[in-house]
Amino acid sequence: MLKHLKKSLINTIEQDVRFSDVDSLGIVWHGHYVQYFEDGREAFGKQHNLRYLDFYNQGYVVPIVNIQCDYKQVLRYGDRIIIETTYTPCESAKINFTYRLLNSVTGELVVTGSTTQVFLSKDGFTLQLMNPDFFREWKEKQGLI
Amino acid sequence: MLKHLKKSLINTIEQDVRFSDVDSLGIVWHGHYVQYFEDGREAFGKQHNLRYLDFYNQGYVVPIVNIQCDYKQVLRYGDRIIIETTYTPCESAKINFTYRLLNSVTGELVVTGSTTQVFLSKDGFTLQLMNPDFFREWKEKQGLI
Amino acid sequence: MLKHLKKSLINTIEQDVRFSDVDSLGIVWHGHYVQYFEDGREAFGKQHNLRYLDFYNQGYVVPIVNIQCDYKQVLRYGDRIIIETTYTPCESAKINFTYRLLNSVTGELVVTGSTTQVFLSKDGFTLQLMNPDFFREWKEKQGLI
Amino acid sequence: MLKHLKKSLINTIEQDVRFSDVDSLGIVWHGHYVQYFEDGREAFGKQHNLRYLDFYNQGYVVPIVNIQCDYKQVLRYGDRIIIETTYTPCESAKINFTYRLLNSVTGELVVTGSTTQVFLSKDGFTLQLMNPDFFREWKEKQGLI
Repeated sequence: MLKHLKKSLINTIEQDVRFSDVDSLGIVWHGHYVQYFEDGREAFGKQHNLRYLDFYNQGYVVPIVNIQCDYKQVLRYGDRIIIETTYTPCESAKINFTYRLLNSVTGELVVTGSTTQVFLSKDGFTLQLMNPDFFREWKEKQGLI
Repeated sequence: MLKHLKKSLINTIEQDVRFSDVDSLGIVWHGHYVQYFEDGREAFGKQHNLRYLDFYNQGYVVPIVNIQCDYKQVLRYGDRIIIETTYTPCESAKINFTYRLLNSVTGELVVTGSTTQVFLSKDGFTLQLMNPDFFREWKEKQGLI
Repeated sequence: MLKHLKKSLINTIEQDVRFSDVDSLGIVWHGHYVQYFEDGREAFGKQHNLRYLDFYNQGYVVPIVNIQCDYKQVLRYGDRIIIETTYTPCESAKINFTYRLLNSVTGELVVTGSTTQVFLSKDGFTLQLMNPDFFREWKEKQGLI
Repeated sequence: MLKHLKKSLINTIEQDVRFSDVDSLGIVWHGHYVQYFEDGREAFGKQHNLRYLDFYNQGYVVPIVNIQCDYKQVLRYGDRIIIETTYTPCESAKINFTYRLLNSVTGELVVTGSTTQVFLSKDGFTLQLMNPDFFREWKEKQGLI
């Protein structure tokens, strides 16, 4: 019966490190990983019908309220990255993703991280204390609850 | 009587090259100069009461329709830049700026460039073929016409 | 005998507009097109064996010395872009690309532009007045000269 | 005798929200706060003689290995930010900063965060397990140890 606690959805994409992602030390600038996380979320949303525009069309925006990032290895220009984005359901009116970035050639774990998003009404930016209906339905469809 | 042809308004700011502006060759990435131009325009607008928000409050947005940039020297992390932004009036419903970026220590000319903006209604993005009244008044106040 | 004047190489990629590419007017910020041009050049280089790292391994860096960009239509979040990058050979020691960006759904032309790059020695950043041998060979292999 | 535990150094700067910092919701994109933290660190380094170039000239680079960020309020175009950057000494060979970003007009706390940096040799990127001598001396000069 604790089955749902273990459920999660995952999306995986692969992309090249861009020239402009790299700083003067020859490594990806730490701030660009925030963009990689967003690339992961957008790909997740596209695969699982949970894009920013889907939220917006339902009347919500979902800003980030917390981000964490641990850097374990560096990436360089010419490297290729795997971005794994995992959604883990929670009871409260929040959206939690975790991220694992891997060097796609060596398989090394490069960065791990997490983000938390909340629901605001798109007009007025009022915080929603309950999960919106469409989001509860989305979770049901995915077999997460 | 050709007096107005020579008139122009200028703004000058000085700022440091940021660590994240520099690429793996140790020089400012060429794309960041577009930001420096915008930094110049924003400082110009602040000084001469012609900020994006002033346009917006009058009912207009002023997107860039052309940008040109010539790179003559490089800038490195630790360098300091002078950004000169010059408004040169024209008859048509356009806003033309030219830019000169200098290394503030050596005085060398680093980059020159120009941008052209047009007036769109903020609702509907309709192109304005005539200069808006407030903009004509702004030019008069500046002694440009 | 004017055959070579008509020769050119082209690369075409397609990608989504990122959420972070869009400004507060809901349209792609003009500065991001410089990145789209670089995305085009990198894809071109991958397809035709002319990547930044190929230049670097031959002893050269190829910075941008001129960029031009004309904005004809806007792109919004949710749009998909086609980036066409065309290399047109020239006699002098320069690399010229032109770009056409299209809205992949409507087919509308959104932006056109061009860049010019020169060859510098990677050590010392000395301007090369002659085309490096490997680059002449690359052009021959492509049937451009 | 626990005096040193309470010591810390602080730097405060104030700057405008740039047009390009703001996303299509009209608020500063969450990823830009990573840049604001770096702006704070660079200003701190300038004030207290601890810039990236100072580390580099001593033979070290100091990449970020952890970043955390909590978003409490939003910032909009036209807003002005106060960035408070605080260095808190620790025994281990790490550099810890905390950040408080405030809306300079309302005084509201907008974002809090922290970063951790480690010392790598600039050649070879070897992790340093001990604080470099020059850094210990810097802490002494600041009265932190």
